This record gives sequence, C-alpha cells and structure tokens, in this order.
Amino acid sequence: MNEWLQILNNHIPDQRILTDLADRYSYSFDASFGEHLPDVVVQAKSKEEVVHVMHIANRYKVPVYPRGQGTCLSGGPLPVHGGIVLDLSQWPKKIDLNVEDLTVNVSPSVLTANINKEAEKYRLMYAPDPSSAHVATIGGNLAENSGGPRGLKYGVTKDHVLGLELVTPEGEVIRTGGQTIKNVTGYDLTKLIVGSEGTLGVITEATLKLLPKPRAAQTIMISFDEVRTAGLAISQVLTSGILPSKMEIMDNASIRAVESFQPAGLPVDAAAIVIIELDGHPQTLEIETELVREIMSKIGATQIVIPNTKEEANKIWQSRKQVSPAIAKIKPTKVSEDATVPRSKIPDMMDRLKEIKETYNVELVVFGHAGDGNLHPNILCDQRDKEEMRRVEQAVEAIFEAAIDLGGTLSGEHGIGTMKAPFMENELGTVGVEMMKRIKDSWDPNHIMNPGKIFAERGQKLVLTDD
Amino acid sequence: MNEWLQILNNHIPDQRILTDLADRYSYSFDASFGEHLPDVVVQAKSKEEVVHVMHIANRYKVPVYPRGQGTCLSGGPLPVHGGIVLDLSQWPKKIDLNVEDLTVNVSPSVLTANINKEAEKYRLMYAPDPSSAHVATIGGNLAENSGGPRGLKYGVTKDHVLGLELVTPEGEVIRTGGQTIKNVTGYDLTKLIVGSEGTLGVITEATLKLLPKPRAAQTIMISFDEVRTAGLAISQVLTSGILPSKMEIMDNASIRAVESFQPAGLPVDAAAIVIIELDGHPQTLEIETELVREIMSKIGATQIVIPNTKEEANKIWQSRKQVSPAIAKIKPTKVSEDATVPRSKIPDMMDRLKEIKETYNVELVVFGHAGDGNLHPNILCDQRDKEEMRRVEQAVEAIFEAAIDLGGTLSGEHGIGTMKAPFMENELGTVGVEMMKRIKDSWDPNHIMNPGKIFAERGQKLVLTDD
Repeated sequence: MNEWLQILNNHIPDQRILTDLADRYSYSFDASFGEHLPDVVVQAKSKEEVVHVMHIANRYKVPVYPRGQGTCLSGGPLPVHGGIVLDLSQWPKKIDLNVEDLTVNVSPSVLTANINKEAEKYRLMYAPDPSSAHVATIGGNLAENSGGPRGLKYGVTKDHVLGLELVTPEGEVIRTGGQTIKNVTGYDLTKLIVGSEGTLGVITEATLKLLPKPRAAQTIMISFDEVRTAGLAISQVLTSGILPSKMEIMDNASIRAVESFQPAGLPVDAAAIVIIELDGHPQTLEIETELVREIMSKIGATQIVIPNTKEEANKIWQSRKQVSPAIAKIKPTKVSEDATVPRSKIPDMMDRLKEIKETYNVELVVFGHAGDGNLHPNILCDQRDKEEMRRVEQAVEAIFEAAIDLGGTLSGEHGIGTMKAPFMENELGTVGVEMMKRIKDSWDPNHIMNPGKIFAERGQKLVLTDD
Repeated sequence: MNEWLQILNNHIPDQRILTDLADRYSYSFDASFGEHLPDVVVQAKSKEEVVHVMHIANRYKVPVYPRGQGTCLSGGPLPVHGGIVLDLSQWPKKIDLNVEDLTVNVSPSVLTANINKEAEKYRLMYAPDPSSAHVATIGGNLAENSGGPRGLKYGVTKDHVLGLELVTPEGEVIRTGGQTIKNVTGYDLTKLIVGSEGTLGVITEATLKLLPKPRAAQTIMISFDEVRTAGLAISQVLTSGILPSKMEIMDNASIRAVESFQPAGLPVDAAAIVIIELDGHPQTLEIETELVREIMSKIGATQIVIPNTKEEANKIWQSRKQVSPAIAKIKPTKVSEDATVPRSKIPDMMDRLKEIKETYNVELVVFGHAGDGNLHPNILCDQRDKEEMRRVEQAVEAIFEAAIDLGGTLSGEHGIGTMKAPFMENELGTVGVEMMKRIKDSWDPNHIMNPGKIFAERGQKLVLTDD
C-alpha cells in the first residue's frame, strides 16, 4: 500500500476510503466521454477532512479530483491521471436560509433543486435552474458555473454566489466574498473560483443570493416553418423591451424525438418551435403576452399556443425537458455541445449547423437556450462505430469553429473539461491561455488539483472513442 | 533625461508626454486623499501606444498608473511611487452599439452616462449608474467595479461586462470573455480584471451588456422618526416580493445639509428618509406602489410622498444627488466611506455608526444605497486640524471594524486603493490576501502595474493627513 494511502487513514474512517475495483470503477466516468480509474475514492464529510486530503496529496504530489453526483457533461470529475477522487456527495446536507438578508448558506452536497424548494417556502427563489438541478449538486454547479433556461433573465450560477469557503490545493482554508450583495474588497476570488472546474481548490461551502419569487408566469409556444424565422423572432422579442425568463428553441428533429418518446401534442411538422416563459406580475404578463403574440404573427409564425392552465404550461416545459432523454433513445451515443453565439447570430449558427450536418453526414439535433445564444447541438451516434465517430469528431470541431467564427465561444455552460481543452487557444490565443495558466500555477504549484482539465496537454486532441 | 523617457518618445508624440511640473501636479491627486507627483504623464490614444508604454515600463521597472478622469474615491490612480501616469481620458471616444445583440463596445475614455444616453435611443439601458456617471470614465468604472443606486436590482459594473481587451503588465494584448451572454471557456478573467483597480493591466476596450429599458418608473419618499425603523422598513419591502430598482437612505444630517444647500422641501425633522424607485410596467408599478405604502404605514412611517409627475420625482432624486456636494460645504474635508453589511444588519450598523460618532466626537453623516446594505458614512472634518484628523482616523477604523463584525465588508463599491489596504487582512485573513497576491505576482512579476494599491506595504497605516 502507498505511504500516502496509509496516512489518509489517520483522519478519515476506513469505510469512506474506497479502494475496491468495483467501487473505483463507479467513479471512473461522468456524463461525458472517457473512463479513468482512480487509485482511491475518499468520501469527505467535513472541511477538516478535505484539508487533510489536500495536505497529503500536496505532499506526495497525488492528483485530487473533486466530484459531486458525476452529472458533468465535460469531464470535470474524471480522474484522468489516477490518484484520489474526492467524493463530496456524502457531505451532510445543509441549507441555511437567511430570509432577511435574502441569502442562503449551503454545503457542497446539496442538490440544486432542493435549495430552490426551501427558498420557495418564503416566496423567494434561487434563480439558476440547470436542467440537471434535481440530480446534480450545487458543488458541481459552482465548479462548472452551470446555466439553465432562466439564465436569459437571471444569469448563471456565478451571478448568484456571494461568497465561498475553499480549501486551496495546498490545504489552506480561505473565505472569499461574504454575506453582502456588494463587495469590492480585493480581487474577486469568488467569481474566479466559480467555473474554474475544480482546478483551483475544493469548495466546501457557499453563500448564495436569493431573489423575490415572481408572482406569476406565462408560457407561450410558437411554431415556425423556417428555422431562420425562429431565430429572427427571438431577436425581435428581445429588442422589443421584453425580457422573458426563458426562451427555448427545439428544431424539428427534437420535436419528433420527443413525440415518439412521450407524446405531448407538439407540432411535428414545424421546422422549429420557440417556447417562451414570461414572469412577473399577472397584469404585466397579460400585456407582454399580447405583445409577443403581435411580434410573432407579424414575423410569420405558423401557430401560437397560449396555455390557459398551469398544467398545460407544465406539459409544454416537460416536453422541452424530455429532449435529452428522448434523443438518447435514437442512437446509443449522444455528443452534447453548448457552443454559444451572440444573439443576433442565432439564424447564422442555425444555417452553419445545417451545413455541418450535411457535410459530415451526422445525425444532428438542435435545441437549447436560444434567448442567450446558447444552443445545444447534439450529435447522435454509436461509439462502437469508429468510422462514424471520426465524422462526429470532425463535425464537433466544425461546430466549435463556426461558433468562434460568429464571435461566439466554445462553451456557454457545460465547461471545458477534457473535451474542449484542445480548442482553448483557438478562442483565447496563446497569451490568453498563458495568463490563465499563470493563475493555476501560482495557486497549485504541484499541479495536483484536478489535472487534465481546461488546459490541454501536449498534443491533446478531441477523441470520442476509447482507443 | 532618463533613458526610458527618451524611448517613450519613439512612439508617442511629444505633446502627449507631459513632464512640466504644473502638468504633473494636476495628475498628483484624485478625489480621495494624498498627493504624489509622477515623473511623467503619458496621454495614450491607442492600444499600440499602451503596449509601447508597458514594454518600456516593464523593461526599466518603472511603475505605471492608469487614470481616467481621476474621480476615484479610494486612490486608484495615485502615483504613489512616482513613474508614469497613463492618462486614458484623451483616447478617441467610441460607443459602438450592437442593438440586436444587446451589447455595446466602448473605449476606456467614454463617460459612463454617455453610454446610457446612446442606449436609450434604442429603448435599451446600460444599467450601472454610479453617482459620478456624468464625470467618470467607463475605464475607471471597470477598474473599480463601480456601483450605484440601481445596483440593488441590476447589479454593479462587473455584472454587465461581457468581455475586455487588456494590455498586460508585460505589454501583451489579450481578449477576455467575448460578445456572448454566456461564456464558461476557462477562467473568468473578465470578472477578475473588473475591480482589480488597475493592478493587473490596462483595459483598452470593453464589451458591455445592455438591457431593455423598463417602460416606467415610480418614486416614493418615506419619512421616519427613528433611523432604526427606516432600516427595518427596507428589510420588509425586500422580503415582500418587490425588488425596487433603487432604495436609498438619508439621515437627518444629510437631509438638513441638502436643505440648507439647495432647498428641495425635504422633511427636515425626519430622523431619516428612504427614497424608493420601482421600475417596470406602469400597471405593475401601481400595484407595487400600493404595497409599499401599506408596508410603510404599518411599520410606522411618519410621511409617505408619492410624486405624481416626473418633475416632482426628479426633484427628490436630485436632492439625493446633492448630498455629497451639500455636506462638502459643511467642513473643508470629507472622508467618504462605503462599508457594506448584510441587509438585515442595516439597523445594527446604524446604531454602531451613532456610537462611533459619539465616541470619537466626529461629524458623521450617513446616507447611501440602503437596499443592498451599502451605506456611505461620511465624516466631515478639517484636514489642517491634526488633532481632529487623528479622531477621524480612529472613527474610520471603527467603521471598518463594525462592518466586518456585522458580517460585512470594507468596501461595497469604492475599492481598496491606498486607504483601505492596511485593513485587508482583517477581513480576508493572511492566506486570503496571499492568494490574491499570488495572482498579482504571476501577472506582474516586476510589480510595475499600479503599485501601492489593494495590497498594503509593510507597516502601512491609515493616514488622512499629509505628514
């Protein structure tokens, strides 16, 4: 047994140090690509235990990979160089609301949806709503800076974090930010750490901002016979003075996938549908709904559905949520992307995606958070088919290229992880990446904190198969 | 002449390299404390010129202090170690709106208020509204992460920056973020740089987010005979489900100062007034106004004024804006603080400020952005009176201590600069400050980029006099 593994035992009970192959195997993958076996899994339950792990890891130069529920779509928790998977999902779950301050303190293991559930008891809300909120931990959301449909109006995870407790790669505990809404005391370490994909330390607590929950919401579903028109419609609504809470798009392939998976009465002949949610005061919603209807009619929508009941509205949103599981049924492998473009470029991006689909002959489905330019092109394929996977790899590269060409970015909400690391310099240039690396090096001189993520290793390429 | 000064001339015309004592003197101070003469002032007008300056400065290890209009309240542009003041205010003014993307590209020299003026032509707004918006540059706002009344609902400068162009301390050009609303590609350098007070590089361009301009606004002015009640009222409104765009407080001393400076009909007998602005759809405003009125009556407000016209509302806001100039008339020196506490702690902070006023026998006036816990305690004094200034220094330290005690922060929006640097460890701990310094060191190995700011020098103390 390794010396460091023996020392680990000193502060952490045996039953939370997993070394059996079967246990380690269940920590070797996430919701993205690749399998990597860790040497050990440590289920930490306190800040002190994390400090202990980091001290040892730093001393023996053993890689550490923090992990929540493993729902990551970009490889964040994958132990690509062996070492220690630090499982934080067993941490005691804490949701301490401070209603008067409109804040909440949470432990990393809490499921994101549960934070919102608690807040709603006091007519408050935790705004970020990643689609995985009911299965993913806030710790993972913080590490990846998760988005979600409501990002259009309310912003992403980062916009709602006031402060963090972090164990540094060298095992020191720091607190960043605080309990106040405004804070300009020194560098903004909070916003640096949120979205740093576990490469700068282990988040052990967070203070989040809550908002008054809007009184009401109104859903509108609009069908189009041209994808491009849907893109233009989105742009027009946003410049009309209305800021919807959500504005999602589904192309024909997504609509058909959902209808054959769990029929919801979606218009299967539409080239695309746009689903909007307005929130606010009921009377404002009436006025804004009418305005949206006018814009959509004028631009040439083929159908406008305005549900009268909450149940009808829920049914529409449920169908949007079913896209991911529904398309996963079409073929065994699903490559989910989140390339993001400036909002006015959505129609152009839609055209480029159509070209890519044809050029590489791949099964490409498009849906996503169109209101903020954050589309989710998904390629359905079979990982065992090497020839197909080569085409998929090329198509994915072409998607990244298209997004950057149009003034966009590699990732709107999933993160860089392992998959997109090779493309970082395309977007940021050599010096841009170098300045990020300097921060990483200064905080983690031994490179033990979630290595292999964000920054590409020499010669690293996009590979979606296991060989 | 210094060798580096001669080389500066190679790329920058003579008339924009100022070495005369009179010229240098006008760059030796800002709106805070202290006077420091630079060796030279360079008025840069392009990215290439900034690159040139930084290359020379880095090679000869000459400090560089970026500066906009010098309205900083924390000493950001002060050339505390001599060297080069890099004046960016003469840069060609660019405000490139991209209406369809709801973004705008600006050069650092643009006055912040002018960005909003341009945006309003398209029914859009640039949300941050620091009180100095009509005299301060966006470059300065970005460096300091400026706030403003509308921060309550819309957040501060940082929340509205999508991307930056930055010349690094070593003279390299990088672009951070981009034109998209969502972006999780690598570390968030944008939010690290905004608010870093010019210590990490020179911002030469920014892409800002615009929002649809709310249709209408409603002002409400409420008087109280107890400051504590005003604090409670603020808390109650915020937890009622209403999120006002602004929520300001003025204590009796501020009210009286304004009334004797430029009478506006404020209630001079009130212990405090709270001024609220609601924005949104006109019909929603009617409902929310009524709700605010109910809350205020119930809690014991002595007077509720709901102006019927825009002119009446403007008059009230104008009186709020007059606080700073009005109190400046009372005594020659004004020490303006921005200690910030969690919202529920506003009543406690008010009590602590009253104690401090009595203990140190100082003329203390309190006003500010109460809705987000960001008060502006101002001490009026006479810098020539050494004995008084010692008491003022102690009172300021006591204000910092009170804010930190109550779970707050040293600075909500003015920045750390020179004045608060000695107190950083009190809030962040040794390791917290150390982790910030590591970033600074890794980006600016020669420590030439705005030295003497944020990080205290050995033995540095708060000194408000010139000796």
